Amino acid sequence: MQVSSLPKHAREVRALIRKGELVQPTSGIAPGHVQTNLAILPKDLAFDFLLFCQRNPKPCPLIEVVEAGNTEPKQTAPGADLRTDTAKYRIFRHGKLVEEVTDLSDYWRDDLVSFLLGCSFSFENALINAGISLRHVEQNKNVAMFYTNIQTVPAGVFSGPMVVTMRPIPRDKIVKAVQVTSRFPGVHGAPIHIGDPAAIGIKDVTKSDLGDSIEIRDGEVPVFWACGVTPQAVAMKSKPPLMITHSPGYMFITDLKDEDVSVL
Amino acid sequence: MQVSSLPKHAREVRALIRKGELVQPTSGIAPGHVQTNLAILPKDLAFDFLLFCQRNPKPCPLIEVVEAGNTEPKQTAPGADLRTDTAKYRIFRHGKLVEEVTDLSDYWRDDLVSFLLGCSFSFENALINAGISLRHVEQNKNVAMFYTNIQTVPAGVFSGPMVVTMRPIPRDKIVKAVQVTSRFPGVHGAPIHIGDPAAIGIKDVTKSDLGDSIEIRDGEVPVFWACGVTPQAVAMKSKPPLMITHSPGYMFITDLKDEDVSVL
Repeated sequence: MQVSSLPKHAREVRALIRKGELVQPTSGIAPGHVQTNLAILPKDLAFDFLLFCQRNPKPCPLIEVVEAGNTEPKQTAPGADLRTDTAKYRIFRHGKLVEEVTDLSDYWRDDLVSFLLGCSFSFENALINAGISLRHVEQNKNVAMFYTNIQTVPAGVFSGPMVVTMRPIPRDKIVKAVQVTSRFPGVHGAPIHIGDPAAIGIKDVTKSDLGDSIEIRDGEVPVFWACGVTPQAVAMKSKPPLMITHSPGYMFITDLKDEDVSVL
Repeated sequence: MQVSSLPKHAREVRALIRKGELVQPTSGIAPGHVQTNLAILPKDLAFDFLLFCQRNPKPCPLIEVVEAGNTEPKQTAPGADLRTDTAKYRIFRHGKLVEEVTDLSDYWRDDLVSFLLGCSFSFENALINAGISLRHVEQNKNVAMFYTNIQTVPAGVFSGPMVVTMRPIPRDKIVKAVQVTSRFPGVHGAPIHIGDPAAIGIKDVTKSDLGDSIEIRDGEVPVFWACGVTPQAVAMKSKPPLMITHSPGYMFITDLKDEDVSVL
């Protein structure tokens, strides 16, 4: 479906997704609404995972946690159903992807706790609005992602290195990029590193570990932000018996507007 | 002991407290260091309480959570021991205060999870540094606290109204007070209400529910901030079999500096 012909409100978009009429990546859909990463885990891992997010707010910015037995994110998407309102889900067992589905109803259990984590779409909109163009958006590519040597703060069974996204920023716009993204701590916030990829363990910044490789031109500096892939990577490492996530790019869309997760 | 004769670093102050040589309220002690409210609960209530804090960050700003079996806040006060390094503790059983002690060693259990929550001392320093004098500090009184009709977002067994602190601010300094405290979301952050006490369910702003009553003079407006008493009040309402807190005014002092919990 053409993005331009879609309804503008998150609620109406979710209704289309629920009916199976919209199965496509959600970038650019319901513009201005906060989109989220989804991580669903059994209750006996939920305290450790919640604590991991609390200790690592930059890679794991919590937008909402839906308690066991519930499927409705009452605070950020009242009326939604987490089993049906994301277009594609991935089912992992003991850390292995076993299936990709469009409906979780057959997989749902009453002991599952759902974590909605901020995604970078919100701060990318803010960067673009501030006149900072983003190459991967212009080239219609996925953002470049890298594993780093920055260790997250462990919590219970969860530990591991931080994954970051990289965006090339013209040197004279770095200050602005820091200012703009600092306003959005709920969706990864300020950069965690500017320049010198080797200092955070990245050997070749022209070859991404995940997503697409993105060219860095003369006069541009690679700027790194904490990435929402981190909590998934860390959770998977602990090989939970069951973990459900959204499929990459197929985010859960909340009713929140970008400004709802900004400070100052 | 005179505050002026005390060591300036948090670590040295905690050593004195551990030896029982410093049993007094901690306001003004180890200046510039982040002081915290302490809430200690059995592990089976820890997920709900952590989630309550996540959902209510203004009254419950988490500085650190120490997992069951541990007594050292490794991130914010390495080397400290939560059983001995606060000068006075309160032991509550089923919501009732049963004892006030200076050492938790006899009460400690391996299933206890400790929550360190930001306290307003940090943002009060920032207000004073910004030229906004605080009457309760000048008069050496406790800050005025009120129960409100603002409901917190419930989590599991925890729910209840928000407790707020009130500080009279000259009308021409309200904007500055909002700006200064907005920089400190980790210690209650921006006000939750300005003026009109009745709008948040406060009948008589000259008579505080907790702490001391504080006079509001001509040209001043009562400004309200979320209060760290909220999580204790909410937890107590659920009558947990055991809950341990610091005694009011006798805070746990971390190694963090105020600027460590600021944004922008």
